[in-house]
Amino acid sequence: ISKRSAILITTGGLGPTPDDLTTQAIANAFNTSLEERPGIWDNIKQKTNSLINRKQAFFPKDALTITNNTGTAPGMIWNPIEDFTIITLPGVPSEMKEMWENFVIPWMKEKKLLKEKFISHNMYFAGISESELSQKLNDLFESKNPTIAPYATLGEVQLRLTAKSTDNINAQELINPLIDKIKERTDLFCYGENKDSLASTIIDLLRQRGETLCVAESCTGGGLGAALAAIPGASDVFLGGFISYSNSIKENLVGVSAALLQKHGAVSTQVVEAMATGSRNKFQANWSIAISGLAGPTGESQNKPIGLVHFGLDSPFGCTSSSKLFSPRHGRTGIQKLSVIQGLNELRLYILARA
Amino acid sequence: ISKRSAILITTGGLGPTPDDLTTQAIANAFNTSLEERPGIWDNIKQKTNSLINRKQAFFPKDALTITNNTGTAPGMIWNPIEDFTIITLPGVPSEMKEMWENFVIPWMKEKKLLKEKFISHNMYFAGISESELSQKLNDLFESKNPTIAPYATLGEVQLRLTAKSTDNINAQELINPLIDKIKERTDLFCYGENKDSLASTIIDLLRQRGETLCVAESCTGGGLGAALAAIPGASDVFLGGFISYSNSIKENLVGVSAALLQKHGAVSTQVVEAMATGSRNKFQANWSIAISGLAGPTGESQNKPIGLVHFGLDSPFGCTSSSKLFSPRHGRTGIQKLSVIQGLNELRLYILARA
Repeated sequence: ISKRSAILITTGGLGPTPDDLTTQAIANAFNTSLEERPGIWDNIKQKTNSLINRKQAFFPKDALTITNNTGTAPGMIWNPIEDFTIITLPGVPSEMKEMWENFVIPWMKEKKLLKEKFISHNMYFAGISESELSQKLNDLFESKNPTIAPYATLGEVQLRLTAKSTDNINAQELINPLIDKIKERTDLFCYGENKDSLASTIIDLLRQRGETLCVAESCTGGGLGAALAAIPGASDVFLGGFISYSNSIKENLVGVSAALLQKHGAVSTQVVEAMATGSRNKFQANWSIAISGLAGPTGESQNKPIGLVHFGLDSPFGCTSSSKLFSPRHGRTGIQKLSVIQGLNELRLYILARA
Repeated sequence: ISKRSAILITTGGLGPTPDDLTTQAIANAFNTSLEERPGIWDNIKQKTNSLINRKQAFFPKDALTITNNTGTAPGMIWNPIEDFTIITLPGVPSEMKEMWENFVIPWMKEKKLLKEKFISHNMYFAGISESELSQKLNDLFESKNPTIAPYATLGEVQLRLTAKSTDNINAQELINPLIDKIKERTDLFCYGENKDSLASTIIDLLRQRGETLCVAESCTGGGLGAALAAIPGASDVFLGGFISYSNSIKENLVGVSAALLQKHGAVSTQVVEAMATGSRNKFQANWSIAISGLAGPTGESQNKPIGLVHFGLDSPFGCTSSSKLFSPRHGRTGIQKLSVIQGLNELRLYILARA
């Protein structure tokens, strides 16, 4: 290993339990024993009263330890042999990230181990599949600097543009024309960049307009509200909503008429529009979105298969609705997650078309 | 590689884009070229109209292909050299799992490659940290068959018990006494096993009693409802709830008195209890749970730090509340997720103590 690479970085296996073996295994590989660092054990004791965590204070004698400010497991930077460095970090993402940014990066800079700079720029897309997006951008994938890496998650696609250079400005200059080209070809499919999410773009749009939003959720059971509430400062815009899971609640609290429920059923464009209008009235919001659908695994009928989901949108510009049939292979929670993403994207496009 | 292992299994890199290189890289390693399988391309064309997916129909000449029933990327089973098998599967978890269970496992059984059976049994814990749990069970971790592997996620701990034997019954017999021992030592901290989740145990408890549940969520914004709605058949029990993000909604829709909000603020035991009682009345549910807290990053005051979350519970047995101070290091979404887990666990213990 040490002939091919100058640095080996490991994550995970630094916990207190017997299957956490990273430090021991690395030491064994270099015939080195572990020694307790008394100061570190004192520090860990302040965070837990569990004796089994003591093993987290053991390191090779000449290893530099990395303080874990948010958990109990310290990491280490160790040169077991010349020109080869091993860096261990915990697997918990928040702890790993904090130690990476606050300790490892500055250490590598100081040791002049970071010769080239990489700048990454993320672009996010909804309402388009990875294949469809790739087809629009096929020739751009040949680019070597910056590179473009597509990454698909459930209902969304991400492109990561990465440029390499010796300084920040140059790398950003390499990326910018590519961003413009991609935006031109993908238009409204591209909903945001870097720290954006579908929910944050909606919160930002409505905050700029000084307007408010509420939701009425049936099959997603609160997932849409949770996605909006995840955005810092969501309360500027998001008033709340109804989780109207049962029909009686749709009728008694949201204000959907019994006749409409009786005639069309809860999973219908008529009812989802009435849910959007009813919740907007009750919450006195400028905009509202409602979702009603069949997440399964049971409950389908002849005209209403599992995966059928309706989206209702209401605002002073009028009420509208759309529908989507998700494949039942995504399962109940998959259909719920896809419905949240689709709902947010429908809402985004609805606002953009009227803003 | 092939001297140490008989089978190499890869996941991912079977997609249509230029960075999906798994099949090509494996073929290169054995100086083999890829050939198109016309039948496979016909099959893929039925699922997408994107031409770039054609590369997913290319395989080494003598490779057995694995049909992907839910996506476009087929996998393969290939013996590039004697006594060494490479199995490629897509990275999308649902596709990978389906192909693994329906094709790879039967194939391995037929080839008598599965000599020993492994049985795994999962146990789930809430309200206890991984360290605390490990301390209760420290001596049991020495067990070699079954083995016990702890795994901590945000707010929960999982133990995976794995037994090895030549037949199913024997492995289960090895595991059962250990399950009993762990349950005895952990009591109510253990909330479920295998397919259980915190939400499913609550749905099951209330379904047995023929009773209903509603929620009132402030800082979690719908996350609690979404966790309950994720359970198949949740509608037997879960009526819905209020996402009462703004104070005016707490007052006008949930029925919290303006005086109470004025005197104690929205993040208080008084208001969270009034939210629980108000929503239970409006939804005419047997049980209710309310959450109000500060998820941050802004909004703290002298007596109310970021991470302070109150839980209100109401039922015919009376109204009660509890509070928790989560570390702000978890960030906004971390505090929201921890609040959902804590809320579900509080509700579970509240029901169990009264059932």
